[in-house]
Amino acid sequence: MIQITLPDGTIKAFEQNVTPMDVAKSISEGLARNVISASYNGTTIETVTPLTTDGSLVLYTWNNDEGKKAFWHSSAHVLAQAIEELYPGAKLTIGPAIDNGFYYDVDFGDQTISDKDFKTIETKMLEIARGKHTFNMRSISKAEALETYKDNEYKTELIENLEDGTITFCDHSTFTDLCRGGHIPNTGIIKAAKVLSVAGAYWRGDENKPQLTRVYGITFPKQKELTEYLHLLEEAKKRDHRKLGKELELFTFSAKVGQGLPLWLPKGAELRERLENFLKKAQKKAGYEMVVTPHIGQKELYVTSGHYAKYGEDSFQPITTPKEGEEFLLKPMNCPHHCEIYNSMQWSYKDLPKRFAEFGTVYRYEQSGELHGLTRVRGFTQDDAHIFCTPDQLDDEFKKVIDLVLYVFGSLGFENFTAQVSLRDPENPEKYIGSDENWEKAEKAILNATIEKGLDYVVETGEAAFYGPKLDFMVKDALGRQWQLGTIQVDYNLPERFELTYKGSDNETHRPVMIHRAPFGSMERFIAILLEHTGGNFPLWLMPDQAIILSISEKYEKYAEKVLNLLENHEIRALVDNRNETIGKKIREAEMKKIPYMIIIGENEEQENKISVRQHGGEDLGSISIEDFAKIVETETNKTLKQF
Amino acid sequence: MIQITLPDGTIKAFEQNVTPMDVAKSISEGLARNVISASYNGTTIETVTPLTTDGSLVLYTWNNDEGKKAFWHSSAHVLAQAIEELYPGAKLTIGPAIDNGFYYDVDFGDQTISDKDFKTIETKMLEIARGKHTFNMRSISKAEALETYKDNEYKTELIENLEDGTITFCDHSTFTDLCRGGHIPNTGIIKAAKVLSVAGAYWRGDENKPQLTRVYGITFPKQKELTEYLHLLEEAKKRDHRKLGKELELFTFSAKVGQGLPLWLPKGAELRERLENFLKKAQKKAGYEMVVTPHIGQKELYVTSGHYAKYGEDSFQPITTPKEGEEFLLKPMNCPHHCEIYNSMQWSYKDLPKRFAEFGTVYRYEQSGELHGLTRVRGFTQDDAHIFCTPDQLDDEFKKVIDLVLYVFGSLGFENFTAQVSLRDPENPEKYIGSDENWEKAEKAILNATIEKGLDYVVETGEAAFYGPKLDFMVKDALGRQWQLGTIQVDYNLPERFELTYKGSDNETHRPVMIHRAPFGSMERFIAILLEHTGGNFPLWLMPDQAIILSISEKYEKYAEKVLNLLENHEIRALVDNRNETIGKKIREAEMKKIPYMIIIGENEEQENKISVRQHGGEDLGSISIEDFAKIVETETNKTLKQF
Repeated sequence: MIQITLPDGTIKAFEQNVTPMDVAKSISEGLARNVISASYNGTTIETVTPLTTDGSLVLYTWNNDEGKKAFWHSSAHVLAQAIEELYPGAKLTIGPAIDNGFYYDVDFGDQTISDKDFKTIETKMLEIARGKHTFNMRSISKAEALETYKDNEYKTELIENLEDGTITFCDHSTFTDLCRGGHIPNTGIIKAAKVLSVAGAYWRGDENKPQLTRVYGITFPKQKELTEYLHLLEEAKKRDHRKLGKELELFTFSAKVGQGLPLWLPKGAELRERLENFLKKAQKKAGYEMVVTPHIGQKELYVTSGHYAKYGEDSFQPITTPKEGEEFLLKPMNCPHHCEIYNSMQWSYKDLPKRFAEFGTVYRYEQSGELHGLTRVRGFTQDDAHIFCTPDQLDDEFKKVIDLVLYVFGSLGFENFTAQVSLRDPENPEKYIGSDENWEKAEKAILNATIEKGLDYVVETGEAAFYGPKLDFMVKDALGRQWQLGTIQVDYNLPERFELTYKGSDNETHRPVMIHRAPFGSMERFIAILLEHTGGNFPLWLMPDQAIILSISEKYEKYAEKVLNLLENHEIRALVDNRNETIGKKIREAEMKKIPYMIIIGENEEQENKISVRQHGGEDLGSISIEDFAKIVETETNKTLKQF
Repeated sequence: MIQITLPDGTIKAFEQNVTPMDVAKSISEGLARNVISASYNGTTIETVTPLTTDGSLVLYTWNNDEGKKAFWHSSAHVLAQAIEELYPGAKLTIGPAIDNGFYYDVDFGDQTISDKDFKTIETKMLEIARGKHTFNMRSISKAEALETYKDNEYKTELIENLEDGTITFCDHSTFTDLCRGGHIPNTGIIKAAKVLSVAGAYWRGDENKPQLTRVYGITFPKQKELTEYLHLLEEAKKRDHRKLGKELELFTFSAKVGQGLPLWLPKGAELRERLENFLKKAQKKAGYEMVVTPHIGQKELYVTSGHYAKYGEDSFQPITTPKEGEEFLLKPMNCPHHCEIYNSMQWSYKDLPKRFAEFGTVYRYEQSGELHGLTRVRGFTQDDAHIFCTPDQLDDEFKKVIDLVLYVFGSLGFENFTAQVSLRDPENPEKYIGSDENWEKAEKAILNATIEKGLDYVVETGEAAFYGPKLDFMVKDALGRQWQLGTIQVDYNLPERFELTYKGSDNETHRPVMIHRAPFGSMERFIAILLEHTGGNFPLWLMPDQAIILSISEKYEKYAEKVLNLLENHEIRALVDNRNETIGKKIREAEMKKIPYMIIIGENEEQENKISVRQHGGEDLGSISIEDFAKIVETETNKTLKQF
């Protein structure tokens, strides 16, 4: 008999060679139907792998990331089989599961594959799936493996890099692949399959090696899930922030200025500023003080901070001066500058906490292939702040920062998020800087604050940075995609490196603790996510243009101006479209621009001193007075924008 | 007889060999008493130089810069004589007039000179001056000149670089110096002399050459003027923006971040932001749109703009990327980025003018020896904007920009300024880019606007940049010092280089004209000048803290909080000083911080629900209600901050 520990802590005895699927069945038939993958003592195994020693078992279903990974990994085998059958002679290379589906890199030789062939491949995959084939792992000698793949130079290269005795094949149906394992019980649970796209990919990502064809696919246990996924994909394309950014004239890029360096157009700059002012106002109430620091610093500054040793060679290279041989770096973060501001004065414990905030633009090198719209850029503005406090103040400061972050998320319509608390690995205390006592204080402060604020959270032990524990916010957008937004980090390292001090109540010199925090993270990335989350329909308070006045004809120009002035008096941001165009065209264009309210004026409106209001998306609010409209705008604004 | 033209255009006939002084006498005895220098056909001459040909004569008095220059140049001779007599064996090198006084670089050998010796030198200078010695120029052969200075290696070096036949000496009293001329009639008009300081200076500014002692001095025709000057100097020291910046906690520098790179402390950042918001608001009304661009750009961008060819080698050197071999530059100006924004869209003449504004931080290399507080820095923020318009719109745009600049100056208490219009040299049209027609349009637009707006202006022909004419504002501060603030420049060059276009009403493609403009110029330099102009007593609307509540004792803490809240409701920015200190100390500290209003509260105030208000500088406004105080603040604010 062996002792198996389950995730809830219960320990059960089973006969040796029991399989994960057997364990699932012993718990419930329902569970057994849903289990598609398992891990034992932290290692991924098959659901049919016999367990021979005591250990901890985790069973995964489609609802776990691990379950999806096994599902898509197994689906890659099925895709490979389909390709092998449809394209005899095509050479398979590697085919991993990815975040959304899987791919297989294939050398099709002289054969070609296009989107017209996708349907055929999908049909073949489902035909194979319906065979309910099990995946069977077997060990194989290196010699035999090489013999199997003697006509496939790619697999041969992979096998040559493996050690004899560790090589395994996986068989299902008539198909065999070199494989490390982690499969679903059988192909039958794959009910829906889609080939998404094909793209070029170099063997092993090396542009000096042959170019292969990467076939992307995705599969689901239910047809309905595939349909939903394809709908989301369609929606995500529509909401792509690069597309919306162009349509709404928010930002642009210039090949001459350089890739990954966004240029903010007037409407985008206004949006940014509104977001910044929103946060500034809340920060002021929370006791932050703004500072402004340069975008460069001497190399020496980053040697002191330790950043140069860590990132120097992979970053933008130093800027030299023509005669004096100085070396400067584009600042990759604002903290060293803020430490120098702290150090420019003497502090007593009575002065703390000091909270220095800056919308600081930083520059970090990214390879051009990694750049993506506003989410991966080479220059971005952090809504940065550093709090310098005593260790005893950490608890309170943490709670205050969480309040601020929750306020920000709430005002911008992000309702769905979890907190991730990263603590140190208690078994390797030597990996961390700072005293045990301070770490305990800080970790307790984070956990207390997280629990007290009622956050939905997970704890990741061992995931803390070497300089301190942290709290990250993971936000789900309207399409169900997860983004890391907002971070709060404790830092014992920089105060040490910059020799920051304050005079304590004991009249002795102490080191302050530093908190790094950024609710948005980066203005660029945040706006990208917000664009995709809202599809460009920002909360009303944030919209660059809240209303547009559309005149039925040019005759009503004067009345349009009057309405505009009245709206401005009510602090409603409005445009006028007085062009000699049909009202239908004006409405269509205003809809395209996602302006929340269209104010249509003609003879009736002028005579009655009213406006006809139509909401973005079509709802007609009828003919109302400007005062009533102002109330509607106010009510709508107050739904999201509360006082901090 | 010769014909002499005077500055007012009159031509008079004189006998040959008449001197400028004779001409002065022929005009009036009063003028003759005041003339101290002259130029003939544009060349500086002595007042006793005989005139032998027809020509244009200008006579200078102490009220002209040229007159002052002759006065101080002559005084340098007197200083040199005093040094020679007091420090036998000291070797004289060079001694020019400067903006405020003159200096002489001397090799004192083994002798030393300190501020204790200044009085003795001044006494000796005045003793020499009282001799009413005339300055007499004479030509001398190179051989004889070298013989005279055979023991002075510095003068020898100077003479060796001169051509035989062009060398002149100047004698006065018992003293002789190598000299090109330009003296006052006699030493007797020097009535007041002051040695200001001594400093080290390398021979010819070369640190590999011997170090000399630079003796700075200043002289005046009246003792009263020296007294006034020394008072201003004292005042300027008190108002030194570096000193005030520290006292008012506005900004700091860090050796680790790098010289010339200011770090803005909370109060300074707030001041900057208030200035920026003030200008943003006016700009918005004037139809500007804000944009945001990165602080770097590809080298290619500056090759296109022409800046790289012109400044590349003397600037911060390119930033390379680790793998991709790209080259970026810190942006030295925002215009190329704004051109790229313009180019990101298609424009019709109906869309113009487009006015893109940005508080853009730029970086320009300055040698460390040239850096000075906030007035000479390596990184600064321009209140930049670029207007893209049709040639026909120039006139109107220029007037609008002037309105904005005048609004800015008025709101900040700069009442005293002149405009300088720089036009092209009509005799060298080939030096300029752009068509004759467009230049005429632009120059006419600038002159029209300048005259129409009633500006006090001077025209500088030939001072235009090669790319367009411009208008600069020269502002006098409270100490009478002149600063260049605010510039408006027309540019035909960048639209050409960036191939900017718009579609005209003729449906053809045209080049827009570009206007660069910056009312502040640089936020850093502007704040420095404003600090020195106001001595830190900014206009009330701009003060970081407008009032401070000083409680007589800690007992009144609650009432202090109540007063603070009420002030905040009136949008008055106030602090509370509730410390357990005497009211005298609290007032002294508030005075130091230059807070405009001190609000003193104690038992009487609390009982009567009033506040006792004391103005910065001492005036007592008595015990008044908060409402009355709010009215006072409003009235004071409206004195400077008008609506644009």
